[in-house]
Amino acid sequence: MVQKANSGHPGAPMGMADIATVLSSHLNLNPANDKWLNRDRLVFSGGHASALVYSLLHLWGFDVSLPDMREFRQFNSKTPGHPEYGHTHGVEITTGPLGQGIANAVGFAMAAKYAQNLLGKDVITHKVYCLCGDGDLQEGISYEACATAGHLGLDNLILIYDSNSITIEGDTSISWSENVKKRFQAANFEVLEIDGHNFDQIDKAIVTAKSCDKPVIIIATTSIGKGASTLEGSHHTHGAPLGEEEIRESKIKAGFNPDEKFVVPYDIKGAFDKLIKGVEAENAWKESLSQETKEKIKKLQNPDFDSIVYPEFEEGTSVATRASNHQILNAIAKAIPGFLGGSADLAPSNKTELKGLGDFPNGRNIHFGIKEHAMAAMTNAMNLYGLFRVFSATFFVFSDYLKPSARIAALASIPQHFIWTHDSIGVGEDGPTHQPIEHLSQFRALPNFYTFRPADATENVESWKVALKMKSPTAFVCSRQGLQVLKNERAYGNVENGGYLLKKEKVLQLR
Amino acid sequence: MVQKANSGHPGAPMGMADIATVLSSHLNLNPANDKWLNRDRLVFSGGHASALVYSLLHLWGFDVSLPDMREFRQFNSKTPGHPEYGHTHGVEITTGPLGQGIANAVGFAMAAKYAQNLLGKDVITHKVYCLCGDGDLQEGISYEACATAGHLGLDNLILIYDSNSITIEGDTSISWSENVKKRFQAANFEVLEIDGHNFDQIDKAIVTAKSCDKPVIIIATTSIGKGASTLEGSHHTHGAPLGEEEIRESKIKAGFNPDEKFVVPYDIKGAFDKLIKGVEAENAWKESLSQETKEKIKKLQNPDFDSIVYPEFEEGTSVATRASNHQILNAIAKAIPGFLGGSADLAPSNKTELKGLGDFPNGRNIHFGIKEHAMAAMTNAMNLYGLFRVFSATFFVFSDYLKPSARIAALASIPQHFIWTHDSIGVGEDGPTHQPIEHLSQFRALPNFYTFRPADATENVESWKVALKMKSPTAFVCSRQGLQVLKNERAYGNVENGGYLLKKEKVLQLR
Repeated sequence: MVQKANSGHPGAPMGMADIATVLSSHLNLNPANDKWLNRDRLVFSGGHASALVYSLLHLWGFDVSLPDMREFRQFNSKTPGHPEYGHTHGVEITTGPLGQGIANAVGFAMAAKYAQNLLGKDVITHKVYCLCGDGDLQEGISYEACATAGHLGLDNLILIYDSNSITIEGDTSISWSENVKKRFQAANFEVLEIDGHNFDQIDKAIVTAKSCDKPVIIIATTSIGKGASTLEGSHHTHGAPLGEEEIRESKIKAGFNPDEKFVVPYDIKGAFDKLIKGVEAENAWKESLSQETKEKIKKLQNPDFDSIVYPEFEEGTSVATRASNHQILNAIAKAIPGFLGGSADLAPSNKTELKGLGDFPNGRNIHFGIKEHAMAAMTNAMNLYGLFRVFSATFFVFSDYLKPSARIAALASIPQHFIWTHDSIGVGEDGPTHQPIEHLSQFRALPNFYTFRPADATENVESWKVALKMKSPTAFVCSRQGLQVLKNERAYGNVENGGYLLKKEKVLQLR
Repeated sequence: MVQKANSGHPGAPMGMADIATVLSSHLNLNPANDKWLNRDRLVFSGGHASALVYSLLHLWGFDVSLPDMREFRQFNSKTPGHPEYGHTHGVEITTGPLGQGIANAVGFAMAAKYAQNLLGKDVITHKVYCLCGDGDLQEGISYEACATAGHLGLDNLILIYDSNSITIEGDTSISWSENVKKRFQAANFEVLEIDGHNFDQIDKAIVTAKSCDKPVIIIATTSIGKGASTLEGSHHTHGAPLGEEEIRESKIKAGFNPDEKFVVPYDIKGAFDKLIKGVEAENAWKESLSQETKEKIKKLQNPDFDSIVYPEFEEGTSVATRASNHQILNAIAKAIPGFLGGSADLAPSNKTELKGLGDFPNGRNIHFGIKEHAMAAMTNAMNLYGLFRVFSATFFVFSDYLKPSARIAALASIPQHFIWTHDSIGVGEDGPTHQPIEHLSQFRALPNFYTFRPADATENVESWKVALKMKSPTAFVCSRQGLQVLKNERAYGNVENGGYLLKKEKVLQLR
């Protein structure tokens, strides 16, 4: 694929192929229904390993064909350079920028925990797997996400760390010399160490991880470009094609016909067909559900936003939009059982507490801690889980800390609601480090991202009515200070036009 | 101060006061010259502890008076809500957004290491101290920075962690349950644990840390709002005034006259005057320097940008601006010994290698690893160290990961050079996750931040001539693909006007 495209990353796919093969026998997936609620989630945090992702999706029976794979990294193909959610069948979430995928996996595991809380541990039994590399672990977002996973004791999360000791600039040791085992023990993970090319060790580690009572990281030592005849272990395999001759020699070494390209031997395809649980697994799960559970799931999957009783605000009174937003959040939560969220340790200031609804994972108030970036990436995944609508919150000025994940939400059309309060120099006396200036322009310049900055409490309500029905991320930029509730001449429903006439003025006649 | 301002944060300043008092006896500072090269650097990573910062600066003899402190958090005062570099005498760097300060401290320590390499370990003997809290440690940027400090073995770095177990939403344990000791051991730190209100333990820990051969974190258990008569230990002391009655009772408890405000007892001021080493320490250091060292320092402090011999590019040829930029970086490095930098593991793609100049800290190529956010914050501090001009590099799309630190560079007028290559959909086949779209608008909307996107190699040269003489951050947005070197009719020096006539066209006459 990489050679045909004449660009891309062969090293990681070859290095992780052994792990992926063994993992295939553990996954509960139904290629006929990529939205099956109790499927295992698999996140490839290093999106550059896309050649492996597409190969697996093909072998597992998703709608990725050999001709699709010939079109790898070509414009409009199903097989772009980094996997994209909503574009390729079976891709759980858009990763790409390093570290995002680990936080996404933690978010999927959090959503599954809350689903267990609502539906029962016997109903939601799946695991969340994440394949990641050195680059993912070096990014701060992965630290934040793993600290959260350890804190919440997510026993449904299994990270598999492809430790190949190679980065683009050379050996990992030129910039990183951490004791990864100790780091993850500090975060309350179970740590397993294996040879990532030993099938037996891989299998045993996954079996152990599946029954562990806390999150697990499997540190798998691998060779980048495994199987390349002369380049195995070299950083030259990371981001460029191996070359025709190297591929030819490698195929011969592996016992393949070097003249055949884009071929899956019949016995290999057959073996994978047997591994994948498929329709039968989903049907067995469905049959195990009570009628009550089925109805609960249906209600969560189809939230009735029209049932929300929104607050009303008296004309002429002064209401900060963070305060009106607080009333609205609570009104939504009251009507919609799958509506939850929280703040990066600013709930009292952001006014995001869902009153009387308890703390996550037993309740709906998520204490994200001071980890904005992971918060947004985890919330992206929670919104894609299939049952929940999840918001996140911080000061507007700290939206900078989570911008990379807001961008992914826009790219992948994830309907996360971002609550950003203290919207201007009205933040008060904290000074310029806490005053957003360029942020409004910044997010309005981001395609497929919808930034609402309501002028008053009433417009805040109208904005939410629009936002809840959108399939894209939305941001609510709210004031700390009181804003006068304007005279209510406007017609409701006009917010979705983007602009409307609040009050008629004399029209100036231009000559 | 907080009560007078009727807003602000009393809890952290009161909780860290004991540590700060003992630390005062260790610091080598000269309030008469806040630019003394061999002074100890002290970074307050939690900028909300500003009431403590200003109190200390006053006690140490910097230009912060009692009347200045009465104006705490007021418009145009010397004592804003969060400390700002260039605004208040003695403030080493603008912190504020959590986590930045830890990365800044690592940056100062890196700069000191390189200064030792150029000038000798007997010349640069100072330490870098950083006071930080739970919030700083939860942020991913602090993980990235500390991983870097441990990797580089920065034996001149001493973090003091104010562990008060309190965050805004309540007890730290609602969102964080990490083994901090183990985390820092994993990152190759020496970890010391003390009672942060026991003077003897604080002193002994600092003495131990000063002679340690690797970076040190002192975990100091403290009570937030220490000394508050009824609120000590409560999260209510974090971000709001204690109230007149609580302050009155607390003063009585501490043996102060409750009717006196903004008073430093004579004996206390006298004791601090004796602690501070001051002019004598700087003079002794100066006298120890050889003439050669003095000249080296002078040359580093006053780089002669006019001595750079820039490359020239032939009209009509095709040159990617990342390639022309590579030649320019090497031309600058050849002429300016204090010019250094590196990439977040993309040097071969960003084309930032300084050829033949070795690897940091022995040479000038910094391998930052896949840690964009810490890279930018560390580089901010390296640029403020007083000797160096430092650049950082990544793909333009990943500028999102470091935006918070770019913003601080703009606020604090730090002349960091940001190299951002792969500037558009011309990034190639990596797909939309790697294609910058909104980023140009985003950074052009940021005040005091200068974004150059040269049209060709020649304009790239002219842009650098302008950028090197600016006192603000500058970004170079460079192409991956070749760009034609345009016909060279333009007058040099016009780039600094922001726009110029490249080629005359017929002027359209509007009726």
